[in-house]
Amino acid sequence: MKSALFAAVLGAAGFAAGAASADEGFWTFDNVPAAKVRAAYGVDITPAWLDHVRAAAVRLSIGCSGSVVSAEGLVLTNNHCVADCAHDLSPANADYFTDGYFASTRDREKTCAGLRAEILTAITDVTAPMQAAGAKLTGAALIKARDAEMASLANAGCGTDRKLHCEVVSLFRGGQFKLYRYRVYDDVRLVFSPGDRTASFGGDPDNFNFPRYALDAAFLRLYEDGHAVASPEHLRWNPTPPVAGQPVFVAGNPGQTFRGLTVAQLETQRDQAAPMLMSQLSELRGRLIRFGEESDADRKMSGDALMGIENDYKIFVGRLTALDDPAFMAARRAAEADLRAKALARMGSAFGDPWAEIAGVQGAAQSLFVEERMIEGGPWESLLFNDARTLVRAAAERERPSSDRLPEYADNQLALLERGVLDPTPVQPALEQLMLEFWLSKSREYLTADDPATKLLLGRESPEGLAARLVGGTRLGDPSVRKALWDGGWKAIQASDDPMIQFALKLDPEARRIRERAEDAVQGPTARAAEAIAKARFAVDGADAYPDGTFTLRFSYGAVDGWTYRGKTVPPFTTFAGLYDRATGQPPFDLDPRWLAARDKLDPATIFNISTTNDIIGGNSGSPLLDARGDVIGTAFDGNILSLGGDYGYDGRVNRAVAVTAVAISEALTKVYGADALVRELEAR
Amino acid sequence: MKSALFAAVLGAAGFAAGAASADEGFWTFDNVPAAKVRAAYGVDITPAWLDHVRAAAVRLSIGCSGSVVSAEGLVLTNNHCVADCAHDLSPANADYFTDGYFASTRDREKTCAGLRAEILTAITDVTAPMQAAGAKLTGAALIKARDAEMASLANAGCGTDRKLHCEVVSLFRGGQFKLYRYRVYDDVRLVFSPGDRTASFGGDPDNFNFPRYALDAAFLRLYEDGHAVASPEHLRWNPTPPVAGQPVFVAGNPGQTFRGLTVAQLETQRDQAAPMLMSQLSELRGRLIRFGEESDADRKMSGDALMGIENDYKIFVGRLTALDDPAFMAARRAAEADLRAKALARMGSAFGDPWAEIAGVQGAAQSLFVEERMIEGGPWESLLFNDARTLVRAAAERERPSSDRLPEYADNQLALLERGVLDPTPVQPALEQLMLEFWLSKSREYLTADDPATKLLLGRESPEGLAARLVGGTRLGDPSVRKALWDGGWKAIQASDDPMIQFALKLDPEARRIRERAEDAVQGPTARAAEAIAKARFAVDGADAYPDGTFTLRFSYGAVDGWTYRGKTVPPFTTFAGLYDRATGQPPFDLDPRWLAARDKLDPATIFNISTTNDIIGGNSGSPLLDARGDVIGTAFDGNILSLGGDYGYDGRVNRAVAVTAVAISEALTKVYGADALVRELEAR
Repeated sequence: MKSALFAAVLGAAGFAAGAASADEGFWTFDNVPAAKVRAAYGVDITPAWLDHVRAAAVRLSIGCSGSVVSAEGLVLTNNHCVADCAHDLSPANADYFTDGYFASTRDREKTCAGLRAEILTAITDVTAPMQAAGAKLTGAALIKARDAEMASLANAGCGTDRKLHCEVVSLFRGGQFKLYRYRVYDDVRLVFSPGDRTASFGGDPDNFNFPRYALDAAFLRLYEDGHAVASPEHLRWNPTPPVAGQPVFVAGNPGQTFRGLTVAQLETQRDQAAPMLMSQLSELRGRLIRFGEESDADRKMSGDALMGIENDYKIFVGRLTALDDPAFMAARRAAEADLRAKALARMGSAFGDPWAEIAGVQGAAQSLFVEERMIEGGPWESLLFNDARTLVRAAAERERPSSDRLPEYADNQLALLERGVLDPTPVQPALEQLMLEFWLSKSREYLTADDPATKLLLGRESPEGLAARLVGGTRLGDPSVRKALWDGGWKAIQASDDPMIQFALKLDPEARRIRERAEDAVQGPTARAAEAIAKARFAVDGADAYPDGTFTLRFSYGAVDGWTYRGKTVPPFTTFAGLYDRATGQPPFDLDPRWLAARDKLDPATIFNISTTNDIIGGNSGSPLLDARGDVIGTAFDGNILSLGGDYGYDGRVNRAVAVTAVAISEALTKVYGADALVRELEAR
Repeated sequence: MKSALFAAVLGAAGFAAGAASADEGFWTFDNVPAAKVRAAYGVDITPAWLDHVRAAAVRLSIGCSGSVVSAEGLVLTNNHCVADCAHDLSPANADYFTDGYFASTRDREKTCAGLRAEILTAITDVTAPMQAAGAKLTGAALIKARDAEMASLANAGCGTDRKLHCEVVSLFRGGQFKLYRYRVYDDVRLVFSPGDRTASFGGDPDNFNFPRYALDAAFLRLYEDGHAVASPEHLRWNPTPPVAGQPVFVAGNPGQTFRGLTVAQLETQRDQAAPMLMSQLSELRGRLIRFGEESDADRKMSGDALMGIENDYKIFVGRLTALDDPAFMAARRAAEADLRAKALARMGSAFGDPWAEIAGVQGAAQSLFVEERMIEGGPWESLLFNDARTLVRAAAERERPSSDRLPEYADNQLALLERGVLDPTPVQPALEQLMLEFWLSKSREYLTADDPATKLLLGRESPEGLAARLVGGTRLGDPSVRKALWDGGWKAIQASDDPMIQFALKLDPEARRIRERAEDAVQGPTARAAEAIAKARFAVDGADAYPDGTFTLRFSYGAVDGWTYRGKTVPPFTTFAGLYDRATGQPPFDLDPRWLAARDKLDPATIFNISTTNDIIGGNSGSPLLDARGDVIGTAFDGNILSLGGDYGYDGRVNRAVAVTAVAISEALTKVYGADALVRELEAR
């Protein structure tokens, strides 16, 4: 359950469909259904409980969640959230990605390049100015006015203080806008990783599976000015084994979900976006698997990218499974018809028909989709191309006043952008070339060889030849070259003879045109209609609603529980004994030698992974699993296969979150890794 | 438009939906709509015309069509139908696949290992005995009784004469059964191939595209007893440029199509089979692309497999596009409701509801699909595994009387099977390993690691390790080893310590169980209900119907024509001048040096490729394109992108076949390849 890589592609965040059922929901911290929780589980979620948890809940820029679990800035998250960092930090003679890493002393804690942690400090309602900014505008003008207002509100909230980050979040698809204010930590260091073999035991075959046997946990530490951050507001570590039925809570950042889309939008996803993206992911997966088989070095180079691609692929399978389910679509159609009828009854015919308006732009959405995805979207992963595009756009945008820019280049974004571009993460040319070649060849395939955009991309070159020329010729792998271009601005960009810069420069006007056309024909009309639907929803359902995931802090409640599906009951627990049973000795079912050595020391009955009814989704990875007191009893790292439709809806009978327990983490830290010092820090009171 | 690799996976052949519209239909040679053709095009398709064409129409065992075009057994087909052969025949110092081959003298014509040609000599109605055989039976018993009757009828028709081949074809999904009798030629030699670069100019990007610039034509020759076959019954070569609107006819073997499936069956394909297969094909495609990039040798080894996979992948994209089109499904639903109402009105309530019966088994079809596809279906491509399975099954089956065997192991099939197993086509171990590894890893992924079938497949090995062990250890690559096992029968199989044989032997009981379960729960009830639906259709529509494609000889009529789609009109012709314009010098848009050298000699206005309204599909590749007299004016090799829904229906406004003209072939043979002797043979009267 890694970051929701394609979330931005698929659509805007939305309303959850219908009133929430038991245990359902990504609840904002300013609208937690405390009465429901009390009724269902007898637990009082007080404002103090929420403030305490919020102050220790961490959002990681890699698309994960985490929590502060000691007074010295120690952060618990998932290992898959630090795997990139472990890979990048590995010296020539060690492989932290595979074998893990433990900083036995403070001076061995190493900064994860580019990783940023944020803690939410305040939520302010800015619905009125945001809706006023867009009033009476349509198309791209509406989108631009809202973008400008967002930037201006964020700027007013945080200014240019690098320790603060403000963003305006659109909830309920424009039904509400809230300003989220964060405290930022941009020196985050790796403390402990068990290594991928142990964290991803079972690999792709077991991903989104349960029973499960993965120690997908890791520790980071927040630093500031070269020192570990003091964190009196931290969560307590509770290595008590969970019991079946125990109420459990999750505080984390679910990524973009699509529960609030209209049926017309869902059909576009089902019939066009999801099949195309699933198919492209499958092919890229195949290319990466074979690439990794070419040598050990290639396997290491591509392992993390492959893990992400396989994860995203499964997510698409889950999405398509939900969308292809006639019962699901029928339920959505019925719910929509119901809301429409009630809205009309309550608000009269002047209300119009925003559903029809959204249905009306699906033709445009579908005909623009391929160009948007391929030309404006760019390659799935390429540091070099992404840096080139950012350098080109930032230079062009900085020539204008902040309010006239593309929103991601507004003044309050520049520090972050600069940090991203100057991030010294080393580039892997062979992998870059694979990613660029794939993107170019898929662009030609989907746009066809005769399309002007294909001709713009390729000229008379082949995807293979162009990718090799760009990667072979660019000097952007050198951070000092990127810095000179960032500092030199538009003049330096125009003067650059770097082939990647020239390529990004050549592509940019067309990419912007596509984006503008989509804003005009799709996003603008959709935003206007979605605001109307949100109003109808508030009028009909009141406050008993949660917005779709937006990778912002949310509260989820539930219980430790298994499930029954097609007559088969899956219990909610696995143990260390089960891990040893499952190990075949062959990857991805092979054990780390330290685990083989520690077998006799470990208590085989230790509860290792558990399933719970919490409603979570990609982005929640690393979230603390909390008990009634708000203490940490584990960290959520996955969902079962039946939870993969969670982007579109929650079915309490079968959707399950998967977590690794604090008791297993403590036991392993002590008996497998000799990390007693870490356990002492966790258990300090 | 290569062989329909997955056709057998997706379902049974069926009725075309509703009455046929203009130019639609794969008409059997005993039911050609001559009156319609006369009315539409003023051409008389007489019995003599049909007999003449039938006697020269060739079916190739690689899944292609062709036609005899000289008195000395010369056969015109597509280059992509001989590409495998060209590859296999290449000596160490030449690459016939890429550069082509021309046998300037008869003694240089080389046998294509394993390639068989058949000419249809008679069609006999066997509906009565076939329906009687299945009467009153259900489930697997029904399937087995029909299989046994098929074998017995085929045996009665052809005996064990190796020059004859008989097969019972189920038309209209069991509404009719016909015995097709063929004259067999099993020494087929390569005469001319222009090479893949010229035949597949534009490669995958241009596949299923038009305008098109591909010389996808090749020549074979039929041999018997070491001599070229005398063929007085051949088609005349007509290198006259076609004109727009000219009536044109195709005689060829369309592969299995699905126009006659019920809506419930179509939904299963849409929601389960097609997405899974498309996704697997995508990944395999990615693995093969990267494999081919590892070295020139690997590229050559995998080129043909990749071409086939990419072709099949596009076919699935086309299928899904049709199935996901709400208008298409609504039309099918309406047509089904209409037939159901008419059938009830005509036949009364005793008729029952066969559509509901078919809908009722879709749950079973869906839950059995993955096991059926992966365990009984086996790897996409692996000569070694397929040989092992054939050896194991043939040995086991030969222990029983012919009528009790799996139908593909009946007495009248054994000669063919033996020939297949002993085919000396060399094995490519690296490619074999890739294919096996892929199949094993996808089986684990789709069945899950916990499934008993996965455990049976893998034991405690990994897909990578098991594939390497099987391919590394087997001696089945040696034809003499295969011969010893074939001759040695069940005792030799049981005694063999060959790891691939042992693996196939271990898997076989489970694969048979799955097959039996599917026959019992799905195929049996479906066959019974489909027969009833066919009766209803005959009662309502009479003879104005054609059956779904079954890779048997069919007649198609139409005209040279372009099309208009979304406001854009595509003319039906391309010329040699267009080829030179399109050539960028980069693969797959690079020209063979001989074409570069011949540029000034060629007439740039020569009509190269054309589009026509003929209703054809995979399996038709290599079919002669005929004028009103039955002379050959080209060979069909593809369809446009809009024809890809042709598996499910034909839309005369946009479905187009694509052919290379006889005039372009003649011009190229003379001026590019110096194959004047071949042209003289073609033009001899």
